[in-house]
Amino acid sequence: MKSLNLVPFVSVDNMMRIVLEIGLEPVLRDLADRIEEDFRRWESFDKTPRVASHSPGGVIELMPTSDGALYGFKYVNGHPKNMKEGLQTVTAFGLLADVDTGYPLLLTEMTLLTALRTAASSAMAARHLAPKNAKVMAMIGNGAQAEFQALAFKAICGIEEVRLYDIDATATEKCIANLKGSGLRLVPCRNPEEAVEGAEILTTVTADKQYATILTDNMVGAGVHINAIGGDCPGKTELHRDILLRSEIFVEYPPQTRVEGEIQQLAADHPVTELWQVIAGTAPGRRDARQITLFDSVGFAVEDFSALRYIHEKVQETGMAQMLDMIADPDEPRDLYGMLLRAQAARAA
Amino acid sequence: MKSLNLVPFVSVDNMMRIVLEIGLEPVLRDLADRIEEDFRRWESFDKTPRVASHSPGGVIELMPTSDGALYGFKYVNGHPKNMKEGLQTVTAFGLLADVDTGYPLLLTEMTLLTALRTAASSAMAARHLAPKNAKVMAMIGNGAQAEFQALAFKAICGIEEVRLYDIDATATEKCIANLKGSGLRLVPCRNPEEAVEGAEILTTVTADKQYATILTDNMVGAGVHINAIGGDCPGKTELHRDILLRSEIFVEYPPQTRVEGEIQQLAADHPVTELWQVIAGTAPGRRDARQITLFDSVGFAVEDFSALRYIHEKVQETGMAQMLDMIADPDEPRDLYGMLLRAQAARAA
Repeated sequence: MKSLNLVPFVSVDNMMRIVLEIGLEPVLRDLADRIEEDFRRWESFDKTPRVASHSPGGVIELMPTSDGALYGFKYVNGHPKNMKEGLQTVTAFGLLADVDTGYPLLLTEMTLLTALRTAASSAMAARHLAPKNAKVMAMIGNGAQAEFQALAFKAICGIEEVRLYDIDATATEKCIANLKGSGLRLVPCRNPEEAVEGAEILTTVTADKQYATILTDNMVGAGVHINAIGGDCPGKTELHRDILLRSEIFVEYPPQTRVEGEIQQLAADHPVTELWQVIAGTAPGRRDARQITLFDSVGFAVEDFSALRYIHEKVQETGMAQMLDMIADPDEPRDLYGMLLRAQAARAA
Repeated sequence: MKSLNLVPFVSVDNMMRIVLEIGLEPVLRDLADRIEEDFRRWESFDKTPRVASHSPGGVIELMPTSDGALYGFKYVNGHPKNMKEGLQTVTAFGLLADVDTGYPLLLTEMTLLTALRTAASSAMAARHLAPKNAKVMAMIGNGAQAEFQALAFKAICGIEEVRLYDIDATATEKCIANLKGSGLRLVPCRNPEEAVEGAEILTTVTADKQYATILTDNMVGAGVHINAIGGDCPGKTELHRDILLRSEIFVEYPPQTRVEGEIQQLAADHPVTELWQVIAGTAPGRRDARQITLFDSVGFAVEDFSALRYIHEKVQETGMAQMLDMIADPDEPRDLYGMLLRAQAARAA
């Protein structure tokens, strides 16, 4: 019988072991499939915009959701200034629990897992929205999320060439060095204009907490798919408003995206399509070859839920977790105080 | 230099060691003082009603708050049916983080800590609201929270006699056996009427998820203080509405209490006093000896915050925690993927 007090915990080290054991590209493909599966049954989820605590340096958020059988939440921060201090901009951990009892089933690091699920979500959306047989992607912003995006688009969408630009050339160098041997053709670019040349997919993934214009209107030609990752909190956008007005816009969860996404620049009733409806077949995705599609991604709790249930399965298969004594479990449930008394007696003995 | 990736974790076992090392009554007194301190600076907290996910068997809640320097949240479930299955009705864990960086500072079990902070909050409120020199408390409901309430009222308010009643006599027996040697005079009672006889403080702490009438109007005499703990979610109350109409009602955070507390039975504009105002001296507490005061307690995030910062201090003093590898910490913050690559290289070697 399993001990009720113990909760499996996946450390950063164990997360890396799980990912490397399965292989990074297979993990990205698996995650994309799980996320797609959960988007298809979107209506079975209890959804709420994340609960954000803003401060001058950044934001701390809780992102809960439940499908009625499992409950998941993620703790995540976003502190753009951290990078200069040698800290991660985004760190995260999460928990999966059993709805019927409220008992935790899994506690896990989610800094790495968030990077993986974000990239898998982007590529999953592009599978439905990008031009058929797209081979070239521009990537503007070459920070912590960049390699994951590149590999997810290779593994899931068949991208062969990535054109890289970052305001800081050392970020591009890091990215190219890391992706050497990935099988991708990597083209460092001197400016965003050069990066978007010939690209069918434009990924923007910068981290500054401000209104910025990473892409201007004249850089976006007919028929491209824009994967906008970086604009993900109030006051932080990446695209010129005119681009949004020319695009068919797809979002995760409108009540959250209207506050946090690129569309915070638009009227509150500007039409958007919910991505889950495209996946469920109740709304059209890309309609023609000249259309500009835009995935205005801010990250939603359901994506973390999919990632948590995937890692929960893998922990059960691989045992790559340590057990934490996290839940008080007296022999008689009403005897919480007695548990303390017995610990006292044991100390005295 | 401290390792950025490691987060101190207080297991159930370490929480018991910390509490027993300091002593249970001193811990309850310390917690009451910390909670009072934080209630006094109530306006410096970022407050929001807890985020609840309800299901047929219970509820899972996230309770975040921040004072601008520290951020805390608690995960807590409430599943009354669990008890019959040999599980805790309430289990919890929590986290304290640094607002400036978003990095976690402490992860801790909070099943025990919630029991302690709930009792400390009750007694702290009674210190301001109960009749002067009260010596006798009735306690209706003798479950997991009962002993903590009894000891907190002894340590913080000077209660000498506790009159116990539970619909299940074995719960009362458990409670009396556990409190033997506490110095309290313990009187088991056959019904709630007998329990309230001569009591100056009436504590109701039952766990059924339903509208119940633990106290009827005729059982509540002039001048008593009612400490109502058990009515703490929509559809769950303990007191007859007529009692509420005769009482001066004190609450933690009105937007939450109006939904979850005893006052869900009253009009949305029924006057209540915020407890923090009594503590800060901007609203009166008990005004005369015949008044009935009622602390309609549902538990609020600030109380958990006080408990988290207390335990964080004690962990720094005692070292009673284990270190969890919870935060991905690459040498170069933008090089999250490189961390994975290096782990892969290390595996291959």
